[in-house]
Formats: sequence, structure tokens, C-alpha cells
Amino acid sequence: MRVGHLIGPELREILRESPGDARAVLDEFHPEDVADVVAELPEVQAAELLARLPAVDAATIFERLEDHEQEAIVEELGPESTAHIAAEMAPDDRADLLETLDQETSDAVLATLEKIDPEAAEEVAEIDRWPPASAGRLMTPAYVSVAPTGTVEDAVRAIRENHEAETANYVYLVNEKDRLVGVVSIRELLLGAPSAPLSEVSTANFISVPPTMDQEEVARRMAKYDLTALPVVGDRGVFLGIITVDDVIDVLTEEQSEDVQKLGAVEPLEAPYFATSFRTFIKKRASWLLALFVGEFFTGTALRSYDSILNAVTTLAFYVPLLVSTGGNSGGQSSSLVIRGMATGDIRLADWRRVLARELAQGVTLGLFLAAVGMLRVMLWGDGPRFAVVIGVTLIGIVMMGCTVGSMLPFLLKRMRFDPATSSAPFIASLVDVLGIVIYFNVARVVLADVIAKAAEAAPR
Amino acid sequence: MRVGHLIGPELREILRESPGDARAVLDEFHPEDVADVVAELPEVQAAELLARLPAVDAATIFERLEDHEQEAIVEELGPESTAHIAAEMAPDDRADLLETLDQETSDAVLATLEKIDPEAAEEVAEIDRWPPASAGRLMTPAYVSVAPTGTVEDAVRAIRENHEAETANYVYLVNEKDRLVGVVSIRELLLGAPSAPLSEVSTANFISVPPTMDQEEVARRMAKYDLTALPVVGDRGVFLGIITVDDVIDVLTEEQSEDVQKLGAVEPLEAPYFATSFRTFIKKRASWLLALFVGEFFTGTALRSYDSILNAVTTLAFYVPLLVSTGGNSGGQSSSLVIRGMATGDIRLADWRRVLARELAQGVTLGLFLAAVGMLRVMLWGDGPRFAVVIGVTLIGIVMMGCTVGSMLPFLLKRMRFDPATSSAPFIASLVDVLGIVIYFNVARVVLADVIAKAAEAAPR
Repeated sequence: MRVGHLIGPELREILRESPGDARAVLDEFHPEDVADVVAELPEVQAAELLARLPAVDAATIFERLEDHEQEAIVEELGPESTAHIAAEMAPDDRADLLETLDQETSDAVLATLEKIDPEAAEEVAEIDRWPPASAGRLMTPAYVSVAPTGTVEDAVRAIRENHEAETANYVYLVNEKDRLVGVVSIRELLLGAPSAPLSEVSTANFISVPPTMDQEEVARRMAKYDLTALPVVGDRGVFLGIITVDDVIDVLTEEQSEDVQKLGAVEPLEAPYFATSFRTFIKKRASWLLALFVGEFFTGTALRSYDSILNAVTTLAFYVPLLVSTGGNSGGQSSSLVIRGMATGDIRLADWRRVLARELAQGVTLGLFLAAVGMLRVMLWGDGPRFAVVIGVTLIGIVMMGCTVGSMLPFLLKRMRFDPATSSAPFIASLVDVLGIVIYFNVARVVLADVIAKAAEAAPR
Repeated sequence: MRVGHLIGPELREILRESPGDARAVLDEFHPEDVADVVAELPEVQAAELLARLPAVDAATIFERLEDHEQEAIVEELGPESTAHIAAEMAPDDRADLLETLDQETSDAVLATLEKIDPEAAEEVAEIDRWPPASAGRLMTPAYVSVAPTGTVEDAVRAIRENHEAETANYVYLVNEKDRLVGVVSIRELLLGAPSAPLSEVSTANFISVPPTMDQEEVARRMAKYDLTALPVVGDRGVFLGIITVDDVIDVLTEEQSEDVQKLGAVEPLEAPYFATSFRTFIKKRASWLLALFVGEFFTGTALRSYDSILNAVTTLAFYVPLLVSTGGNSGGQSSSLVIRGMATGDIRLADWRRVLARELAQGVTLGLFLAAVGMLRVMLWGDGPRFAVVIGVTLIGIVMMGCTVGSMLPFLLKRMRFDPATSSAPFIASLVDVLGIVIYFNVARVVLADVIAKAAEAAPR
């Protein structure tokens, strides 16, 4: 039988018409599908439904909702009911929820949580210790562990007792000092004899990450070693928790959205397009648009300072957008190559010289190529061979400058501990545009020196 | 014990100094780490090492290398040795390899493969039937299956016998008509009694995908339902293969690189930055750069057509880059929001009206905001209140136009069955720049009508 969006209408009807039967529905459908339907209910109705379910079932649905959906429902639920549901959520999802909510609501939920389930509150504090976007924030303490001295049978019993453990594809061997000393997969347990000692079926040669590792690096590590769960190990080998592959996929998708939005000069949205309010859109867009706008004021200042040249040779004005945008395009290419290279780990900070050398070589080549095309266009427009020289020389200069600025600015930003994907594009745009104008008019000043001088003499003043 | 980059030097020494011991090394280190070291060896040495190993061990290393690394090593290995290694690779990796190689080499390898292992060649043909970037291309036939009438014990035996099956977290229940009728996780097998019938521990309510589904959609589906393997089911429920989570992570990372590069107007690279040759870079960049350059020619044409207005009010020229870039920035914001919304499934083709309405509302608001700032700047530059009106009105028009073009062009491209991420940015750039100039000079023509008329009279001609 195929589940998925097909069951939507049927499920919706049951939830709408007899929410009392909702509990029975949960056994029949995948919680993910139930969550989809709940997300589409009006908040009041969704809150009512969740409040009516046993907290453990409500949590299964609730933890699958998007951040902005959770926020809206919590407003209806109130901190009390939310805390009861939160207590039953997976620890990492619980920490996420409390981070999503505004400070006041989050504090209220946490206060109730401390009363009804101090251990759950403690788990949140444990996760919150770590820096944002780190392995520590992604991990969950919901794993299965056994003493390394046990047998396969002991491990199987541990799995049976921890049925809420997130994805139990591995059992972790933890010694009396809380250190992780081995990992055994369920598969190995299944194939081993029940009486076999764990030391025989487990491996001590496992991959682990520190809690401070960046989440993108965690995702890369997990993909590389084809793991479905990755243990997080702190100082002196103390086992802290595991990161599961589903969270890693979420991280990758989220980071991808952020990258695309940042490259488009929009502050990353927290919600899908249609779930984002008008106000949020304006807030996310206006600041960048303004920064870029103010940055571009300098193109006006630059042009004004070449006023006399522009008046002497008015044809120069016709080529300004063409030249300026070509600088921006070549710079944009270089920066997107470098930003992506940094994100995938191909390019490190120390590689800047190698990158610069490559980009300069490419800049000269691409510049020469565009210069040839541009000069042809000048001749066809009838602006003459000397003007063609101005455009040709300017194009070579501008493309080289674009490649240099576009490739080096991400290094500078990263060095200054900014995310190179943020802001590279906008900074590059303003800088490259202004520098392009400077190159253009200085080339014109030299190549067309006599024309400019003659025009200055003939000027009415 | 921690493995990873630490073991690099040690491992390299063993492989360099006594490649004869390489076999022993494989048991001690993770094949992924061995592959890292092999990737850094000169191709001749890497090929020599792989040829010397038993094919099954060579395949374990070889299938973990990047496409471009495989290509270089195959050149040294020759089609004969490559076919022996390919026969031992995972079927999906084998199909990938043959697709990576140039036609001639690929044919030669396949010819040998058909002789030494017809079944392996058949598996490749089976995968190649499906469209590029589809579920069919990602799947592997290396799964564990049992008859649905069996017991837990039968399933465990099947796992034991299929130890090379990719990631055996599930056992698939396939009936005599090759139909997939159930799925049971290893965890459920472990917790079930050996004599329990599979019908009791398995679920018939599993998630599957058709072989034609786009790989990005597969990734979304897998992430949503937190699966580590997803069965691919063809016509009439026939079980074709499984897609494992590690391949999905690779897909996500690859698509992300492509998106960022496309938004930067670079043809997606197939290899990491430093592994890409100068020639490839120029090829990937020149075509886009030229297309954008030629597109921008129209800004020159547009400006020329407003020659008389530009001569009458030379101040107009100073604002051209500022206005043109603001149109581009607002358009870039809208397009990146829409492109990403399409990629994550939030925005569908039918939503274009809703998106247009939202973007127009945002365009007016953002335009008014920038107009206020821009008019202030005009006054500070001393260009007077009437000029401020020109800039203000133009900015509102340009930002609205940018938001409209930027949000609608991805729909148009998608409708025409192009990838909206490709090419949106460059098309938008040229179109928005030209339209921006048209808006600017027409606003100026109306607001400054008397000034322009006076200047025309006073003109020397």
C-alpha cells in the first residue's frame, strides 16, 4: 500500500469530524503524514487536537512540524500544555522548539518542564551548552548503550528496553567512566551468537566527532563514511550523544536554502515562501537592498569626479552599464566558485595565493576574449578604432579586477570570521562597480587625452 | 581510537614503501581513508596499487574516488583491469563509472565486463534505462529479500548470505511475482522470535518511490520519513531496487554546488576547484560571460536612443549605475526566493499569481523606502527637488519591475522545462538593466520636459 499525500483528504476528515478517534488514526498512518494534515488545520483546531491526544502521541506529531507552525500552535496551546508535549519530544527537537519560541514563552515552557520532568529540562540545558550550528546542538542523548563487558544478548536486551531511542542502528559500548569504547551495529548483533562477548562483534575503530564541530563538517563526515548515526565524543573520550542521518539531511537542505538566499542578498527566511509574512519579507529584504543602494552611491560619486571627461566624450556614458555589469559578472563567477569550494572543503583559507594565481590567469584570458567581442561591437556602432581601444583595454582590466575582488573577498570575510556566503555578493557588487568606473575613465583619460584636451578648450566656459 | 586525516601519513608510507602489504592495510583502516590516500598518489602509482590488489579490494577503494580521479586512474589501468575492478563495484557505482568515462573507454570496459561478468553488465543496462537524475539511476539491486511467507529466521539467514548488500538495515518481502509486499527492519528482526512469521513483524505500509521520480524529490521524501533506505517500485508493484541514504546525501551536496554555481553564472563544475583544469574553467565561464555581455549590449542601445535627453540633462548619467543595479538587486532577491521555493517544493507552477501579487506588494513597499533614501541623496548632492522627483519615481518603478521580472522569469523558465536555477540570474540581469534604463529616461522625459525642450533649442545645431 502506498501512503503519502493520497491519504490527506481521508485523514483530514477523520481529524475534523471525530477528533476523538485521532488516537486510532496514529497507528494507521505515518506520523509524518499526520503532521502534514495537522499543519494545514487552523491553529486553534490543531492545538485542540494535540491537547486532546496523550502527550506522547501529540509529541510524535508536533516534533515533525516546521518551526513556524510550532510557534503558531504553541500560542494557542499555552506554555502548560506545550511543556507536557515537549517532555515527550526527542531531546534535540525539544531544544530546537525552545530556541524557536520567543524568550518569554520559552522561559514559561521551561519553567513548567522543570517541574513536570526535570530530566527533560536538564537534557535541553545539556544541548544548549554548545555553540549554534555545532555538532553538540544536533546530537540527541536518545541512544542505546551497554557495558563493554556484556554479550550480544545484553545488547539486544538494551535495545528492547530503549524502544524510544531515535534510530537504533547501532549500540554503543560505554565504560564505567562514561567513555565510548566501541560501536556495534544491529546487523552485527543479529548475525552474532547471543552468548558472544561484545568485544568480539564490536569495533573500537569507529568514527566520532567533537561537540564543537561545525554542522556542515558533520554532514560531510557522515556522508563520506556512509554512516546513519555518528557518535559525539567530548573531552577525554566521554560519550555525549549521537547525531542521526535525518538531522544531517535537514541541515544540508537548510544550509542550501540559506546559501541561495544569501547569494541573492536576502536574509535567510525561517519559513517556506507562503508561510512568511509580508512584514518579515520586507525586513529580510530592505536591509540588504538599502546596504547595496548606499554602496552604489559611490558609483555616482565616481562618475561625478570624471564629469569633465564625460562631457568631453559623451559616448563614454553609453558603455557604463555594459562595462560595470561585466565586472560584476566575472566577480560573481569567481566568488561563487570560491564560496562553494570553501563550503565543500576543497578550498581552505591558506589556499588564497593559489586561488589568486588561478583567477588572475583566468581573468586575463576571459578579459582578452570579451575585449575582442567588445571592440567589434564598438566598430559596428561606429564609435571608431580609438574608442575600441578604450573599451578593449578597460574590459581586460575590469575582468581581471572582477576575478580578483570576487575570489579574494570571500577569503577576507572568512578570515574576519564572517560567513563568506553572506554578503560576498553585495560587497563585490558595489566594490566592483566603483572600481570598474575608475578603470574605465582612467583608460579613457590616457587613450583619448588629445580629444579630451580639445573639448576642454572648446568648452563654453 | 580516532581514525581520519591523522592516519594519512602513516598509511601513505605503507602504500608507498611496501605496496605488497596493502592488502593487510585494508583491514585496519576505513576504506574511505585508504581512498583519500590513493587519491593523492600520482595516477601511475595509484593504478599500479589497484591492479596489484585483489579486484574486490580494489573496487572497495576505487568506488570511493571522485569521478575525475577515477577517470585519470582508468587511463593508466586500461579497460581490461578496469572491467575486473568494475565487476566488483556496487552496481550503482559501476553504472556511474561507465557514465563518467568517455564513450570509447566506456565501451571497451563494458565489452570486457560482458565477457567476464555478464550479470554485472546487465545490472548497468538496468540502471541506464532510467532518465538522468531519476530514482532509477540512484538505486542499487544490492538488497536483501525473502519470500513473504518466511520467518524471522529465514530473513536472518538471507542477511547472512548477502553480506555484500549495501546497507542492510531492512529486509524486503518480495512475492513470486517480484512484487514488493512488505518491509522489515533489522531491528524488528532482532527483537522478534526466530520462529515468528515475517507477516507479524513486517509492515505492508511502507514508503516507496517510482523509478522515474526526480532525485531531489527522492531526497526530500527520504528526509521527511527519516528513512535510511527507500525501495524503488515499478509498474504493477515490481520491486526494482533500493536507494540508500548515503547516495541521497551525495545528491543533495551535488545539487547544492550546482545551484550556487548556476546562480553565479558558471556552468556546474564536475570536479573540486583545484582539480579543475584551466581549460575547463574558461569553457565553463566564457559562454555565460559572453551571453551576459551580449545581453548588456542592449543597455548601450537603450542609452543611445535617449541621447538627446542625456545631452540636455547630463546629470542623468551619474545615476545610471545606481538605478540599474537597484533593479538588478531587487530582481535577484525575488528570483532567489522563488527558485529556492521551487526547489524545496513550497512554490509550484500554479502559484504564479499568488507570487506575483506578493512580489508587487513588496516591490511597492521597498520601492517607496528606497525612493525616500534616494531623494535625500539627490538633495544632498545638490541636484534639486525636481531631479529628486525623477529619481524617486524611477526607483519605485524599477524596484516593482525588478520584483516582477525576478519572480516571474523562473516560472517562465520552469514552464519551458528549463531548470529555473540555470540562467534565471543572467536573464534577469540583462532584462532588468535595459528595462531600468527605459523607465528612468521616460520618467525624466515627463518630469523634466521643459528643461529638455529648452536645452534642445539652445543646442548648437
